[in-house]
Amino acid sequence: MARIALDAMGGDFAPRATVAGALQSLAEIEPAHTIQLVGQTSVVERELRDLLAGEFAGQSARGVRRDRLEIIEAPEIIEMTDKPGVAVRGKPDSSMIVGLRLQAEGKSDAFVSAGNTGAQMAASMIILKLHKGLKRPAIATVFPTSRQPVVVLDSGANVDCSADELTQFARLGAVYAEDILGRDNPAVGLLSIGEEPEKGNAVTKEAHEQLRASGLNFIGNVEGRDLPAGQCDRGPIDVVVCDGFVGNVMLKFYEAVAPMMLGILKRAGVEPDRLTAALKDLDYSEHGGAPLLGVRGVSIISHGKSSPRAIKNAIRAAVRAVDSHMNEHIGRGLQSVAGEGEAA
Amino acid sequence: MARIALDAMGGDFAPRATVAGALQSLAEIEPAHTIQLVGQTSVVERELRDLLAGEFAGQSARGVRRDRLEIIEAPEIIEMTDKPGVAVRGKPDSSMIVGLRLQAEGKSDAFVSAGNTGAQMAASMIILKLHKGLKRPAIATVFPTSRQPVVVLDSGANVDCSADELTQFARLGAVYAEDILGRDNPAVGLLSIGEEPEKGNAVTKEAHEQLRASGLNFIGNVEGRDLPAGQCDRGPIDVVVCDGFVGNVMLKFYEAVAPMMLGILKRAGVEPDRLTAALKDLDYSEHGGAPLLGVRGVSIISHGKSSPRAIKNAIRAAVRAVDSHMNEHIGRGLQSVAGEGEAA
Repeated sequence: MARIALDAMGGDFAPRATVAGALQSLAEIEPAHTIQLVGQTSVVERELRDLLAGEFAGQSARGVRRDRLEIIEAPEIIEMTDKPGVAVRGKPDSSMIVGLRLQAEGKSDAFVSAGNTGAQMAASMIILKLHKGLKRPAIATVFPTSRQPVVVLDSGANVDCSADELTQFARLGAVYAEDILGRDNPAVGLLSIGEEPEKGNAVTKEAHEQLRASGLNFIGNVEGRDLPAGQCDRGPIDVVVCDGFVGNVMLKFYEAVAPMMLGILKRAGVEPDRLTAALKDLDYSEHGGAPLLGVRGVSIISHGKSSPRAIKNAIRAAVRAVDSHMNEHIGRGLQSVAGEGEAA
Repeated sequence: MARIALDAMGGDFAPRATVAGALQSLAEIEPAHTIQLVGQTSVVERELRDLLAGEFAGQSARGVRRDRLEIIEAPEIIEMTDKPGVAVRGKPDSSMIVGLRLQAEGKSDAFVSAGNTGAQMAASMIILKLHKGLKRPAIATVFPTSRQPVVVLDSGANVDCSADELTQFARLGAVYAEDILGRDNPAVGLLSIGEEPEKGNAVTKEAHEQLRASGLNFIGNVEGRDLPAGQCDRGPIDVVVCDGFVGNVMLKFYEAVAPMMLGILKRAGVEPDRLTAALKDLDYSEHGGAPLLGVRGVSIISHGKSSPRAIKNAIRAAVRAVDSHMNEHIGRGLQSVAGEGEAA
């Protein structure tokens, strides 16, 4: 049984998209799971009423029932344009802070927000705290590929990472791939500019050596070309490790490539409907939100432009994280490494 | 009048693809231009004979004539797998070294190779030398976008760049965009992870400040998403500056995205012919080779898998570089900056 707190006020299309996403997800997740809608009660109530009487009318047999939803009052809202630090300190009664605090107090199991990403990162670190032995959390994003989806991290939480940090990201990503994507002994690649260990910048060369000794299923360096393919010469890839600068550039690039190609193909007269259907797999919203890995809890970052479908998928990811005990799994993994370090 | 030296032995499909590319280009470039085929004379002669009697028979009226081609003997070959330093020192009579030396001796105006990229970079720096004031050369790659093509540099020559180096890359890229792509007062963007000057890693933040004071048409930070679009909120982009690690990852990623999407669309039943035609613009070979900017001369790096068409387009780029006096233009641009620095 998982209790998922959703920031009802977060995101460009909130509260309509968030509440609708919550309702969509009720039809999909197991009946025992519940959703906590965190926000201004009157606003959330109105959306709920509209949607249950309209788009979602008559779906109670499918699990879309008011009694699986709880509204948690949070009068303040962190805006997209608020500075993270200022927002976290200055808006203690915002939906984001209240939602995360529920988890710290044991009243919730996971938090999902499509709001201000910087604020969510800062607040998650302050309220949930980091796992012992970790220097930084990382945002893990799932990239669609020609084969299976690949976890890329960090995709924007950290710039100027050390080799130690990249190695920690590899551990976090491996747990995520195992618990959420169901990969067995996930294959971890280090993003670089050549297969050979000596190719790369100073940090990746050092990280390569660390990863070889990490006990992870490290398959060596992978290149930009291996990512859309989902594989390299040495087989399929489950996790790609890089610093948040490179990861963020690549993520945004990727998000923009599919629309660009659609534009080119439409101008060339290829039927739009066929394209849209074919490229559905490339839609980031299919893969739900991006978890902030490393905090002691579950904090899922969704895109600011999240549709109800994207919110629903983020909730599904949150449920999987809770069901698979990903958080404890990460903590154990890091402890065993710290233990080895002390023993050595 | 430009004399273009082509490494006839360089590339995965050489000498067939290189010689065929040279013949294709003769039909396209002005009649005054000539091509110097550098390689093993007997091998090159045989290819020429075959192609002129076969695929290119009867095209002399279109300019495909033996007398516009010169064969320059070079008995040795630098292999794709040779270590750059070893190859450059150990194979002084290779097609690559001989071809670049022609230019240093004033017997040629530009060099094009699809051979070992590392060796071409090292040999170009040693034989042609760098422009005064430059610390490193950069590889400039032209990325197709939804709008006009965009020059991205560095795309693989340098990792761990300083802010000074990124600023120099901006100067090199601006000249390239002006001379080769015909852009007026090219708009230069700095690749980062947010529009705001304070977003990015330590080097990009410093480079941002330098670029604002550079006298270039600096439009600020651009993000991964702006590249496929060819524009950002502030208008069209002509040049994108980044270090060679990020640039190389992105370039290889981009090259692999189009084939991946084609695969998805074909599986979805979209007619392959239509797709191939529509996506021709995304084919890197349309845009010829990537110049190594900063050396005192013209050295064009082509993809190892270059087709005759790619070689032809690289030769066209070389001709444009010579015709537009890009090399002198770069030298003047760097001198005027050095002069300002001394005056200040």
